[in-house]
Amino acid sequence: MLHIEFLTDLGARVTVDVDSADKLLDIQRQYGRLGWTSGEVPTGGYQFPHDNEPDFDWTLLGARKWTSPDGEELVIHKGHAYRRRELEAVDSRKMKLPAAVKFSRGAKSTDPDQLREKSDGEFEYVTLAIFRGGKRQERYAIPGGRPNAQNQASQAQSSQPQAARPAPARPAPTARLAPQPAPHVAEEEPPF
Amino acid sequence: MLHIEFLTDLGARVTVDVDSADKLLDIQRQYGRLGWTSGEVPTGGYQFPHDNEPDFDWTLLGARKWTSPDGEELVIHKGHAYRRRELEAVDSRKMKLPAAVKFSRGAKSTDPDQLREKSDGEFEYVTLAIFRGGKRQERYAIPGGRPNAQNQASQAQSSQPQAARPAPARPAPTARLAPQPAPHVAEEEPPF
Amino acid sequence: MLHIEFLTDLGARVTVDVDSADKLLDIQRQYGRLGWTSGEVPTGGYQFPHDNEPDFDWTLLGARKWTSPDGEELVIHKGHAYRRRELEAVDSRKMKLPAAVKFSRGAKSTDPDQLREKSDGEFEYVTLAIFRGGKRQERYAIPGGRPNAQNQASQAQSSQPQAARPAPARPAPTARLAPQPAPHVAEEEPPF
Amino acid sequence: MLHIEFLTDLGARVTVDVDSADKLLDIQRQYGRLGWTSGEVPTGGYQFPHDNEPDFDWTLLGARKWTSPDGEELVIHKGHAYRRRELEAVDSRKMKLPAAVKFSRGAKSTDPDQLREKSDGEFEYVTLAIFRGGKRQERYAIPGGRPNAQNQASQAQSSQPQAARPAPARPAPTARLAPQPAPHVAEEEPPF
Amino acid sequence: MLHIEFLTDLGARVTVDVDSADKLLDIQRQYGRLGWTSGEVPTGGYQFPHDNEPDFDWTLLGARKWTSPDGEELVIHKGHAYRRRELEAVDSRKMKLPAAVKFSRGAKSTDPDQLREKSDGEFEYVTLAIFRGGKRQERYAIPGGRPNAQNQASQAQSSQPQAARPAPARPAPTARLAPQPAPHVAEEEPPF
Repeated sequence: MLHIEFLTDLGARVTVDVDSADKLLDIQRQYGRLGWTSGEVPTGGYQFPHDNEPDFDWTLLGARKWTSPDGEELVIHKGHAYRRRELEAVDSRKMKLPAAVKFSRGAKSTDPDQLREKSDGEFEYVTLAIFRGGKRQERYAIPGGRPNAQNQASQAQSSQPQAARPAPARPAPTARLAPQPAPHVAEEEPPF
Repeated sequence: MLHIEFLTDLGARVTVDVDSADKLLDIQRQYGRLGWTSGEVPTGGYQFPHDNEPDFDWTLLGARKWTSPDGEELVIHKGHAYRRRELEAVDSRKMKLPAAVKFSRGAKSTDPDQLREKSDGEFEYVTLAIFRGGKRQERYAIPGGRPNAQNQASQAQSSQPQAARPAPARPAPTARLAPQPAPHVAEEEPPF
Repeated sequence: MLHIEFLTDLGARVTVDVDSADKLLDIQRQYGRLGWTSGEVPTGGYQFPHDNEPDFDWTLLGARKWTSPDGEELVIHKGHAYRRRELEAVDSRKMKLPAAVKFSRGAKSTDPDQLREKSDGEFEYVTLAIFRGGKRQERYAIPGGRPNAQNQASQAQSSQPQAARPAPARPAPTARLAPQPAPHVAEEEPPF
Repeated sequence: MLHIEFLTDLGARVTVDVDSADKLLDIQRQYGRLGWTSGEVPTGGYQFPHDNEPDFDWTLLGARKWTSPDGEELVIHKGHAYRRRELEAVDSRKMKLPAAVKFSRGAKSTDPDQLREKSDGEFEYVTLAIFRGGKRQERYAIPGGRPNAQNQASQAQSSQPQAARPAPARPAPTARLAPQPAPHVAEEEPPF
Repeated sequence: MLHIEFLTDLGARVTVDVDSADKLLDIQRQYGRLGWTSGEVPTGGYQFPHDNEPDFDWTLLGARKWTSPDGEELVIHKGHAYRRRELEAVDSRKMKLPAAVKFSRGAKSTDPDQLREKSDGEFEYVTLAIFRGGKRQERYAIPGGRPNAQNQASQAQSSQPQAARPAPARPAPTARLAPQPAPHVAEEEPPF
């Protein structure tokens, strides 16, 4: 038997018994839908294959997609809103990197040091997940093959410093039908 | 089966078995009434929908309401007293935020950095919970629909810096019938 | 069923199964007698009602009373010796606090920052427990109502800075019958 | 019965029951093949006998060998790529050390302090494992005695500061058949 | 039933079920022989009665004795080598301390701050265990009463600063029959 440790949407530490290893992802999806998470976001964010991005099942991470009133596509994870950014491939003499899609947010003063990444200038950010290279894993996809149409709307975006982008309008969340409280962008943090 | 980890009122680490996921909140209420907590207060405090505030069941967090001899409504959590503050909606060009109710206290020298939030000036505080936006969740309410009359007495309060408020008289706790030791409010540290 | 996590007297991490919640304190007493502890000393020390001090059952915390060859009453917890101090009530315009009894020791260079409390001057100390206000809880008392005669001997003591007190003679522990190794005051730390 | 705690490839905290102590390494191999790890990399890296290096079973650590398009042999562990380095024996008046093989990478700004080791100059690195001295342990070897031919290709390398080596071309990972996402060398970190 | 958490010699987190409390030390000996440890070394080191030193069972801590090629008696714990030092009794006006035996090593740059102890000058060290005062506990002894002859050879040594001692020749470990990799003594860090 296996046992998976979650932090519930109320922040409680709860372990759930799992009959066998092949049922583990089902359990992660079932409780992740409630906003339960297991483990910490790794430094630099979760790493997934690039081709898993269009129909990635965010419930595996206790996260969910959310489209702001401004029409911006965000991923909500433990009360934080992460923006989708497309990073162009890098092919210089010093570095070769394939194109990637990254979900990140501006760092907050209360984020621990090991999660803060530095961009050009003084801007710091936190990455939830990066999709780059690799081979698509079916087990990370939304079961039933539901395509995720929202991705079409995502604006092209280079790997230039995020801080240099014009500050997007901050979303003003309204009442929703979702089972979690509405996420709120940080009160006094700079726009990300 | 599930298993929930608590820190008891004596600070002991105790796990309680739970038969099924739908009994989890009952168990949290049952032990929370004794001051047991599960998990840490998240950085920036727990986030709940605004409309859950009037009859929020604080036992879910191992906390309880307490009215001071001065008539001030406080929430006691792990020996700390948190004040209720109403934050006005923000609707500027840079930021849009709905009105909120926040339970916070002045930071103590022994609070870890990631819990301290900065206000205007040098004042630092720690937030237990913030109620803002979102859609009311019945499961967070006191079972049986007991309204919480104490909220009527709460003074209106803007989102202006808390440090600028006139320092309220410090309550001198007296013997009570509650099962926990009396909390002591202290915005700066006591002199010993 | 419940499960309580201990740190044994050998520093091992051991979990003990407990049949029901009402047996929990018995188990804590049983293993606490061996010096096993569960959880960490909270920042600022454990808080108990004032009237629990005379017959407080220190085995609940994995601690025990010990009278030094000099006749001083100490509490030993995880190899550290804590002195008993009586704090007078404070009743000023800025603060009202009832009288308290505190068990504390001088900070050592190896104590983590969040445990160190500052007194007047540069003296830092660590508090194990403070007894103040509240209503006596029978469940914290030594079972069978054994009064603790040692408390009679405790000297009255103000809340003046501990550093200003004349340094007491450091106890030279001798062989004892107790099941734990004799506590030793730190080698190069200032007297507490 | 035993229970082993893993961090899965998705970063989830999962405990797996193990019938008996002699099955433990099998379980570590079985889940390590999926990239699951148990425990943290020790400060200074895992220590193994020198003669275990040629056919060391990296699945025991949740790691795997990977040959880059440039033909360089790397070990991938939790998304980081570690280079193989041969350290000559040291036999000076101050120190005697047998030859060793070390798998290390350049430190990243997000690595915790206790993992960073200093070389000559300002270069910092992180060690996954070091093979030096001792007596070969069969239980650490790939079961079935598969020899690891890749080691032949490893270039001889002195214990001179790694920072002084000419920066090798950064590998540009391509789609692979392996069950984990392709590792990516850090975006803005100096070449290692 | 009890459950004890170990860090295996491979650094894995493994819990072992124990039928009853009186079998706990047997289990610690059984797995400690493999280099498994439970819990952390306490700040300042484990404290044991002085008279337990001659036949102390180091397997209780996952450690083992090892005599270097130079004939120096060392204790190996998690890959670190600790030297045996005898501390004379202190009987001054400021402090009274009985004689002690201490097992310590020079601090490494990667040791966490709370483990580093300062001596005279800039030398820092880490203590594994100190044997001083108290009453001998039979349960800490090697079962079967095997005397430990090696202790006869230990040189008398005062509590003077360890850094002032003439630097002993650094042992050059060779292949051994012991089940763990050979430890490497290093008071300063090796040059790579």
